[in-house]
Amino acid sequence: MSTEIEELAARFRTFVEARDWERFHTPKNLVMALAGEVGELVAEFQWLAPGEPLDEETTARVRAELGDVTGYLVRLADVLGVDLIAAAHAKLSESEKRYDPATYRGSARKAPPLPP
Amino acid sequence: MSTEIEELAARFRTFVEARDWERFHTPKNLVMALAGEVGELVAEFQWLAPGEPLDEETTARVRAELGDVTGYLVRLADVLGVDLIAAAHAKLSESEKRYDPATYRGSARKAPPLPP
Amino acid sequence: MSTEIEELAARFRTFVEARDWERFHTPKNLVMALAGEVGELVAEFQWLAPGEPLDEETTARVRAELGDVTGYLVRLADVLGVDLIAAAHAKLSESEKRYDPATYRGSARKAPPLPP
Amino acid sequence: MSTEIEELAARFRTFVEARDWERFHTPKNLVMALAGEVGELVAEFQWLAPGEPLDEETTARVRAELGDVTGYLVRLADVLGVDLIAAAHAKLSESEKRYDPATYRGSARKAPPLPP
Repeated sequence: MSTEIEELAARFRTFVEARDWERFHTPKNLVMALAGEVGELVAEFQWLAPGEPLDEETTARVRAELGDVTGYLVRLADVLGVDLIAAAHAKLSESEKRYDPATYRGSARKAPPLPP
Repeated sequence: MSTEIEELAARFRTFVEARDWERFHTPKNLVMALAGEVGELVAEFQWLAPGEPLDEETTARVRAELGDVTGYLVRLADVLGVDLIAAAHAKLSESEKRYDPATYRGSARKAPPLPP
Repeated sequence: MSTEIEELAARFRTFVEARDWERFHTPKNLVMALAGEVGELVAEFQWLAPGEPLDEETTARVRAELGDVTGYLVRLADVLGVDLIAAAHAKLSESEKRYDPATYRGSARKAPPLPP
Repeated sequence: MSTEIEELAARFRTFVEARDWERFHTPKNLVMALAGEVGELVAEFQWLAPGEPLDEETTARVRAELGDVTGYLVRLADVLGVDLIAAAHAKLSESEKRYDPATYRGSARKAPPLPP
């Protein structure tokens, strides 16, 4: 049984192999592709006033950009052999310890790193 | 039944609510957080020669950065109500049409956008 | 007579040569270094409410990040042989034509590209 | 007497004021615009093999992207009141101390931060 992320990774892998693009999909290049797509996502939000809702056209573009970002992130993790969900849970566990709810309630300030 | 992405989103949501951080987690701010984390990921690869493998310490940092990127991406999609996997499959379907395997085999050049 | 940008580029070039780092400073790698530094800059602003001023410590970090961004941008342009100021003026001339003041006054919407 | 950066900043300021765009040009929004443009620059280099030269069309696009990046960087610094050249020289002075030429010759490893 495979997860939805594994299925997406497998489909992307097949797509790449069918075009003989493995040589382009090094980790370094995929990180750049991811950064380029995130740049396009940032550009959709740059002039937005706080609380200003996205109009319908922008929403559609944002959904498409999120699709691109997800695709390259999953492809990069596939090439590197990293489990994205496990990695995210590990960081969230760390943040739960670093940011004590009582101390950091309603505050955006940064906590010191956890002792090793 | 929920997927692994929904579970991660739910855990992140609880984490944010316990700290009263909803006001910080606007789409605009989360896009910036995502861009910041992707910047850290890019920095890990910047001086790497092509084909140069990551050493053990860098691998651990890359895994942690991928965890941060995944966390903010899932959180952003949760706030926007976007299904990341569906969005990625939609873009991949588009790419399959845009990049005919025979024409683009072994080539990194960009295809024209699909006709609307 | 040289400009302040040329002087900065010359100092950076000397710095790189003294360390035998030319092999690392390919355009591709320098673009990644630039992206990494811009990511750090973005992170300084991510949780800021609109109109919220930077505190003293953040201001100092922002100044340092702007120094890093400027350094890598000037270094990249030096390696590529691009005149940054001329390139910026060319794009501003284009924007002056694309964005007619009467039509775009007070509006953040994007203009169509200029006809070729 | 003003420098070429001050002249560019002044021209950009006039451009913004003529369109009543000051409300959009907050530091936070300009940092996002800068990140978006750097993302476009990264995308031009993502599939390039090491040492692969840019073709003529890509060179023209890269020059245009560098113009956009420079424009927003200079505009952001103008709004923040930061002297980019001074900030870059300050960081370069720091790097000269951090990276002793004898120790770091030919090496891409990161030096520890300077003691405060």
